[in-house]
Amino acid sequence: MLQISQRGKTMPASPIRKLVPYAELAKKKGTKVYHLNIGQPDIETPKPLLDAVRNSDFKILEYSHSAGNESYRRKLVEYYQTAGISIDHNQIIVTTGGSEAISFGFFACFDAGDEVIIPEPFYANYTGFAVAANVVVRPVTSSIENGFALPPIHEFEKLINEKTKAIVICNPNNPTGYLYTRDEMEQLKALVVKHNLFLFSDEAYREFCYGGEHFSALNLTGAEQNVILMDTISKRYSACGGRLGALITRNQQVLDAVMKFAQARLSPPSFAQILAEAATELPADYFDNTKAEYLSRRDLLVQRLNAMPGVYCPVPGGAFYAMARLPIDDSDVFCQWMLESFSHNQQTVMLAPATGFYETPGLGKDEVRIAYVLNKEDLSRSMDLLEIALQQYPGRTV
Amino acid sequence: MLQISQRGKTMPASPIRKLVPYAELAKKKGTKVYHLNIGQPDIETPKPLLDAVRNSDFKILEYSHSAGNESYRRKLVEYYQTAGISIDHNQIIVTTGGSEAISFGFFACFDAGDEVIIPEPFYANYTGFAVAANVVVRPVTSSIENGFALPPIHEFEKLINEKTKAIVICNPNNPTGYLYTRDEMEQLKALVVKHNLFLFSDEAYREFCYGGEHFSALNLTGAEQNVILMDTISKRYSACGGRLGALITRNQQVLDAVMKFAQARLSPPSFAQILAEAATELPADYFDNTKAEYLSRRDLLVQRLNAMPGVYCPVPGGAFYAMARLPIDDSDVFCQWMLESFSHNQQTVMLAPATGFYETPGLGKDEVRIAYVLNKEDLSRSMDLLEIALQQYPGRTV
Repeated sequence: MLQISQRGKTMPASPIRKLVPYAELAKKKGTKVYHLNIGQPDIETPKPLLDAVRNSDFKILEYSHSAGNESYRRKLVEYYQTAGISIDHNQIIVTTGGSEAISFGFFACFDAGDEVIIPEPFYANYTGFAVAANVVVRPVTSSIENGFALPPIHEFEKLINEKTKAIVICNPNNPTGYLYTRDEMEQLKALVVKHNLFLFSDEAYREFCYGGEHFSALNLTGAEQNVILMDTISKRYSACGGRLGALITRNQQVLDAVMKFAQARLSPPSFAQILAEAATELPADYFDNTKAEYLSRRDLLVQRLNAMPGVYCPVPGGAFYAMARLPIDDSDVFCQWMLESFSHNQQTVMLAPATGFYETPGLGKDEVRIAYVLNKEDLSRSMDLLEIALQQYPGRTV
Repeated sequence: MLQISQRGKTMPASPIRKLVPYAELAKKKGTKVYHLNIGQPDIETPKPLLDAVRNSDFKILEYSHSAGNESYRRKLVEYYQTAGISIDHNQIIVTTGGSEAISFGFFACFDAGDEVIIPEPFYANYTGFAVAANVVVRPVTSSIENGFALPPIHEFEKLINEKTKAIVICNPNNPTGYLYTRDEMEQLKALVVKHNLFLFSDEAYREFCYGGEHFSALNLTGAEQNVILMDTISKRYSACGGRLGALITRNQQVLDAVMKFAQARLSPPSFAQILAEAATELPADYFDNTKAEYLSRRDLLVQRLNAMPGVYCPVPGGAFYAMARLPIDDSDVFCQWMLESFSHNQQTVMLAPATGFYETPGLGKDEVRIAYVLNKEDLSRSMDLLEIALQQYPGRTV
């Protein structure tokens, strides 16, 4: 018998995308689906970025340098400088989305059976990249009660053994929206330096911090060899379909190894590099406006959620996600029910069940991740729908 | 001590790209480098394809479906129909380049320690994808003496054990240009069916066959569950920088597993999907013209090579590569010497040492891969340079 791999069988389905077939069925029945399940913003990609691609005049769509065009990497250095991060263009490897930066980082740093510790709930696809690389994810649970703050360091230390190779964080966090404080970052630094671990820091949402200051892992003095930054243009410029990211580190051994994986896949996409190079020329107020928009959406969302009976949503400090606790028996069943069996005026909402963001089985059953990627009118209507759905849902617990 | 992974250390550098730093140095010294090392054609990307991107009028560069836009997959079905291959759009998963198709196929079908058999010399990056997936490559050596035809099936059977999961071929072949005959394909079918193996078939150069007919692995009756096709638009339309490929199989288990890896990385690049969808509308004579151009280049190249004392180059039946045996001691040393120490009228040629295409250590030391991706004038000048270089090279053997 032909058999697929154990890896292929173990690979989890994306909690963000696994309900897509139900959404497609709902749409075929004529139901409008508000997508709060996925981090696909409705904010327009800045026109100068799309124009840069549309006005390009080359005749051959060629491979680029495996690390990305040097001209783009030099512009990225300026972008990071503006963000308060000092790096050299040779410390940047441009990747196909942040996804590839994570994959390459894992391949370069981990062998089969190695372990990484990740505070849960965490970006579900980390598990996917870990499965691909045969790496074991050990979760440390953070709690909705304190807004998903960094768990105590001794909880990490309990899990550290000779197979532990790294801590992986996302800051500000997807799915919780939590923004790590400077003090929490320093605690993580002390931990990785003490135990000789890599610190993978996914900073895809760097620009979207509300209230607090973002502190990049690359600015942790004394952890220069430990820190590997994973980045992407997807959220920064609402350019998810470009598929352009970057892996950045000052660790030369890691850069050399990642470069070999980068060469094997030849190059990152060329069109997106043209777009992203143009992005570095955006006026300084671009992020101010985008951030203000997300902030007002966040406030609307959190206010509406916490006004619903039995619902609790801590105030996220960054990114554009919120985790909410709902009065439901099972978030997977509930989210599927919203698509299959519920509609109001031929409309419904798609959310991401939180179970897929927890590694520990059984956690997240009464939580969902909500991406506030739609304009306030749509967001408000989505909250109306959620409120009605919660009243009708047969598995309501409170 | 912080350590990178064994996988990162084992990962081979690309034989096609590892000499790039020497080429960059040569260029900085003012030397023109003719690039015959890499499959980057100088043929223009068809204008309607670039225009499709330049005239696109969307406002948000969104994620696409993880399997690629349905509209594109439906057009691909028509393309394959024209190529004599019958498949359904649900049997196609659009990938980021052919590279990702190979990676996802390996992840879905192989576990750490599994073995695949590949006739060598083979596309060097297969080793890279195998290292990433912790898969062991077992080579069966093909020979320049018979133009790199398929080795006898009993040579494959000698290597088959309980860990063997697949045979991987590239047809027409990169780096040898060999075009497998219908009879050879049937032999491979019998082998994979008998031993329950997957047959991975990389058909990136399907359109470029000279003399013989291309026979796709997808047309092997009785091996529907075994065959996994890896494809790309890179060479077909001279659109290497788009980074768009596809994995195609009729094996539902494999499709389901690959889809989970595809979802983890969210989506393939959006711009390239617009370009590739337009490509399916190209007039039928597009490939005739491109093929005629490559054919005339091949003839020029093979004639020039075989006219050089001590040089032998079999006539390739497809793709746009030739493997040549040169009167040299070490192809790695020679190719580096061409960039570092040789120039004629401030010009030199970059070739790919064949050693990187052989898995067996020691093979390929007197062979190089030459990509005939430059116009005939440049190709002819490159052959002048190679001829002069061979006369001057201190490690000349004959």
